[in-house]
Amino acid sequence: MGAVNGMNGKKNAAIVGFGGMGRWHWHQITKNEVFDLLGVYDIRPECIEYAERKGVATYSSFEEVLSDKRLDVIVIATENDQHKPLALAAMERGHNVVTEKPVTVSSADLDEMIEASKRCGVLFTTHQNRRWDGDFLSVKKVIEEGLIGRVFNIESRVQGSRGIPGDWRGKKEHGGGMMLDWGVHLLDQIVNVLLPDRKIESVYATMDHITNSEVDDGFRMTIMMEGGMRVYVEVGTSNFIELPRWYVQGENGTVSTPWDLSQGRIVCCTNWETAEVKPIRTAAGISKTMAPRTDDTIKEVPIPLIDSDVHDFYRNLAAAIDGKATQLVTHEQLRKVMKLMETAFESDRTGQAIRFN
Amino acid sequence: MGAVNGMNGKKNAAIVGFGGMGRWHWHQITKNEVFDLLGVYDIRPECIEYAERKGVATYSSFEEVLSDKRLDVIVIATENDQHKPLALAAMERGHNVVTEKPVTVSSADLDEMIEASKRCGVLFTTHQNRRWDGDFLSVKKVIEEGLIGRVFNIESRVQGSRGIPGDWRGKKEHGGGMMLDWGVHLLDQIVNVLLPDRKIESVYATMDHITNSEVDDGFRMTIMMEGGMRVYVEVGTSNFIELPRWYVQGENGTVSTPWDLSQGRIVCCTNWETAEVKPIRTAAGISKTMAPRTDDTIKEVPIPLIDSDVHDFYRNLAAAIDGKATQLVTHEQLRKVMKLMETAFESDRTGQAIRFN
Repeated sequence: MGAVNGMNGKKNAAIVGFGGMGRWHWHQITKNEVFDLLGVYDIRPECIEYAERKGVATYSSFEEVLSDKRLDVIVIATENDQHKPLALAAMERGHNVVTEKPVTVSSADLDEMIEASKRCGVLFTTHQNRRWDGDFLSVKKVIEEGLIGRVFNIESRVQGSRGIPGDWRGKKEHGGGMMLDWGVHLLDQIVNVLLPDRKIESVYATMDHITNSEVDDGFRMTIMMEGGMRVYVEVGTSNFIELPRWYVQGENGTVSTPWDLSQGRIVCCTNWETAEVKPIRTAAGISKTMAPRTDDTIKEVPIPLIDSDVHDFYRNLAAAIDGKATQLVTHEQLRKVMKLMETAFESDRTGQAIRFN
Repeated sequence: MGAVNGMNGKKNAAIVGFGGMGRWHWHQITKNEVFDLLGVYDIRPECIEYAERKGVATYSSFEEVLSDKRLDVIVIATENDQHKPLALAAMERGHNVVTEKPVTVSSADLDEMIEASKRCGVLFTTHQNRRWDGDFLSVKKVIEEGLIGRVFNIESRVQGSRGIPGDWRGKKEHGGGMMLDWGVHLLDQIVNVLLPDRKIESVYATMDHITNSEVDDGFRMTIMMEGGMRVYVEVGTSNFIELPRWYVQGENGTVSTPWDLSQGRIVCCTNWETAEVKPIRTAAGISKTMAPRTDDTIKEVPIPLIDSDVHDFYRNLAAAIDGKATQLVTHEQLRKVMKLMETAFESDRTGQAIRFN
């Protein structure tokens, strides 16, 4: 199905679920040069009305979507718990499928979906758009180019102050909570893109329930990796002051930046061996250890800016459908992040650090 | 011994160990109105010479200190591993003793010291000067006055960038390392002064060995307490950019401040229920959850400044020697922090979160 591209040479997509992220996909699809949007479907009349007001074609039922033989891909952007049944139904009818993140809500569900895609011979992947975040790509470049020496600590934080804005993301039955919403991005960035081959040794995590007792409205997660690499991932929704989006330590320097890289800094050490340190007075004591460095032993380096284009997700999708590229978000990557999230929940439940295999 | 005060009504002190902290005590003792310094002793000739150059009286041997019947207290400010033998020797000769922090390097050692003080009927305490840090006292006031609502997360960080400045603090045999050097302060502030009655449930810690393989040159420690209180304590010596000294979250606000409180902020929520949130674009995606708050739902509050006087340590010591006050740093408090530090090392060694009894 969808083997022959549309008249303009583009592939054809439909979107199921036309809320916030469904509309994001509408804009993405209509702005790239590889896909056309044939229509959208949502069970909510107000979302269909919204589409009609905006001149977006609509389907009258999910069955109508499934029956559309022109489609090259169905994009599923519903509540998280609906990804699996909708994706399975679509794949069983021979459709390629992209789900929004998280791919689904458990490893068992994910295995069923992967099995279905293999059995049905269709492409199945997930939209991990934050692989294209400029802040992430810049920090990745700093690390990979060794600008701060061997890196031993990576802290990735996303902090808001609105709790979980009121919709299904606050409900357990729909796969709500911040781990599945934002954790999935932050983990994917680090374990699938930045450090894909680094063995994970253990996970220690605690969940917050400040504004929501049903699902986590934030979490803190320490991932110890081989070679003494510590990764810390945090999502918060009760943070009225934000800590930096990234804080990364190497043996010879530190990077700290908010989302807006123009506010970020890299400070590198130019001379570890310095003369005798003078103690400084800090509050009610003195300290040599915490004495600030003098300017002649450090230097500030500008943060490299990386061009990125999130449309590459759809470009890769088109090529992968044609068998000309490997899908960017692979099944193994989806499995790894899902296992990590489940391990974090287990750690929180048991109060233990959990070995990760 | 020392029951009769000196001619000027002051009590008499000697200092053993005249390095960095010994000299701090010299300044403290000579600037308060309750103690006189009778002399100092150090095994290092250069430290004795320094004292003589500065006009500070010196003893010619530790035995001479022990034999000085005028003394009300002996202050021990040597390497950490020497606190115990020197304190035991002094207490056996009937002297009241103050050690520098950490009181010693293990719970077993501490128990011996406490037992000796009881058997000999002398006062035995430790100098925890950072209870008087203005930043700590201000954050304590913010928490206790409920300025940010019920607090659920307290992060206390001290970050330097010089590794462990080169002396005995880098050596295991002398009780070196950042946990014993700075951890002892940060833990004492929180578990003995800020939250003395809060039950500690578990400890998860990892140690750094970036510039030193023998002792920790930094650590990160999560302490989970009853009622969902999370305390995070971190010391680093490879941080070329500093995160805030304090970051504290309450249900209705956040405090973030460096050591210098004039750079600190308190942001409080004035209206949790807001109208429909507009998603913001952040890097390669959109988010409602991370949309910043509008100014009409938050307010900035100035950080309260607290007067404190570290001389109160010696004032209390004089009163405690006279039986007119309880010593500020008690044996139980010393035990609690020593146990916590040992639990942190155990957590790092085993990779486990450890229940704390």
